[in-house]
Amino acid sequence: MDAFSCDTAVEPAGPGRWRATVTDRWNVPAGPPNGGYLLAIVARAMAAELPFSDPLTVTGHYLRPVSPGPATIEVEVVRTGRRHATAAARMLRDGREVLRALGTFTDLARADGPRHISATPPPLPPREQCAQLVGRERPDIPPFAQRFDWATPRELLGWREGRRSGQPQIGGWIRLTDTETWDPLALLLVADAFAPAVFQLEDLPIGWVPTIELTVHVRRRPVPGWLRAWFTTDVLLDGYLNEDGIIWDDADQPVAMSRQIALAPR
Amino acid sequence: MDAFSCDTAVEPAGPGRWRATVTDRWNVPAGPPNGGYLLAIVARAMAAELPFSDPLTVTGHYLRPVSPGPATIEVEVVRTGRRHATAAARMLRDGREVLRALGTFTDLARADGPRHISATPPPLPPREQCAQLVGRERPDIPPFAQRFDWATPRELLGWREGRRSGQPQIGGWIRLTDTETWDPLALLLVADAFAPAVFQLEDLPIGWVPTIELTVHVRRRPVPGWLRAWFTTDVLLDGYLNEDGIIWDDADQPVAMSRQIALAPR
Repeated sequence: MDAFSCDTAVEPAGPGRWRATVTDRWNVPAGPPNGGYLLAIVARAMAAELPFSDPLTVTGHYLRPVSPGPATIEVEVVRTGRRHATAAARMLRDGREVLRALGTFTDLARADGPRHISATPPPLPPREQCAQLVGRERPDIPPFAQRFDWATPRELLGWREGRRSGQPQIGGWIRLTDTETWDPLALLLVADAFAPAVFQLEDLPIGWVPTIELTVHVRRRPVPGWLRAWFTTDVLLDGYLNEDGIIWDDADQPVAMSRQIALAPR
Repeated sequence: MDAFSCDTAVEPAGPGRWRATVTDRWNVPAGPPNGGYLLAIVARAMAAELPFSDPLTVTGHYLRPVSPGPATIEVEVVRTGRRHATAAARMLRDGREVLRALGTFTDLARADGPRHISATPPPLPPREQCAQLVGRERPDIPPFAQRFDWATPRELLGWREGRRSGQPQIGGWIRLTDTETWDPLALLLVADAFAPAVFQLEDLPIGWVPTIELTVHVRRRPVPGWLRAWFTTDVLLDGYLNEDGIIWDDADQPVAMSRQIALAPR
């Protein structure tokens, strides 16, 4: 079983209750587990209570810092319809609520209807021209980064050595290191996988950017292979920032959109 | 008292329970009350239970069609911190849940920190060059439209006579017809006030676009006066569409951002 499936698995623990283990394999550079990883666990429990498994729209509100360890997810089924089903959920660690979520699920395999796409795929060069990194071969990097293969335009990595691009945009090619196939729930993870776009701004410290709320819309089940993701912050105001993301799959389809509101690094 | 304050008022009805009246004064052309109006009522009840009144981020999931009449809002305080407070809420009509919401509130007057804005104000001509409409003077138009003054670029109105722009974008100048000041909660209303941007596409019917989920980030308290709003759908895929909005105030500041996922008209 691939690491994502394994580390987001949930086990029944009574009516509307699920047990999970928040592993330390998805810890970000600053230390704690990635927020998209936590949301994926909660969404897994929601899907387990609903007749549909694709997270058409999931919102998480991050309430407290989370450390790895056993967690409980309580799910309330809000409504089940023919085409959509809605659930609310909360994740508890050590008896304290750390994450509250609300989601509407569907069966994207049955989705059908008009199409008009004016969004354009991320402005990424071919992978061969990018800085490539195979996560599993790099025990020296943070656990989260080890879970993926990355291909990132070199000019987007300069912020690590103090060469900021000046444009609050970030992105790259990404895939899980141990599977080619995509669980739609893994798009919640990819939606929060990259360094904050505001790290490209000269006048901001490189530091923790606490997500207050993250919403992800999964629009299509990705085909196997690489994804391309792109994130932009266009309004940093009074210490708060939005970060909007779009994820495209190897068949050149937009498979997910995300938006989060977070605190600027201090 | 202005119509928005009056029609979103909530009265205590027991611990965590609030009573409201969904009036028919905010009905949209197709008939039912506007979704942003419903979300504003729910957010009013949430704010009433919390120490902060500004809806930094509010998400609503629309569960069932809503008709005007008495409603109950049940609010659960999820977490109260020094700077942010989170609540979950549900609106019931005739004992059935019609809307589930999740929101984190703050005091935007105390917000402070870095600023970098790459978003640009909506591409709108001066109001004098727009088609102007004073809502209260027009008993012939739907109730919702009567609540506002509008100034809309003429080329964005052609879809009503079959002249679609071909670009899924819509927007204009807007203010409440009976007050110059802005309750931040009214931004939830403005975020859902315009005709769907996809009405500009040739090949789509003009019809009901049911919102599944709407998230609004309120970023600053607007100064009194006109707002400019702009809405774009960049991914219509398999019958689902996102609509992203941004609202600027008369001091040239971005005061709110919105995103909804909805079903394409059929």
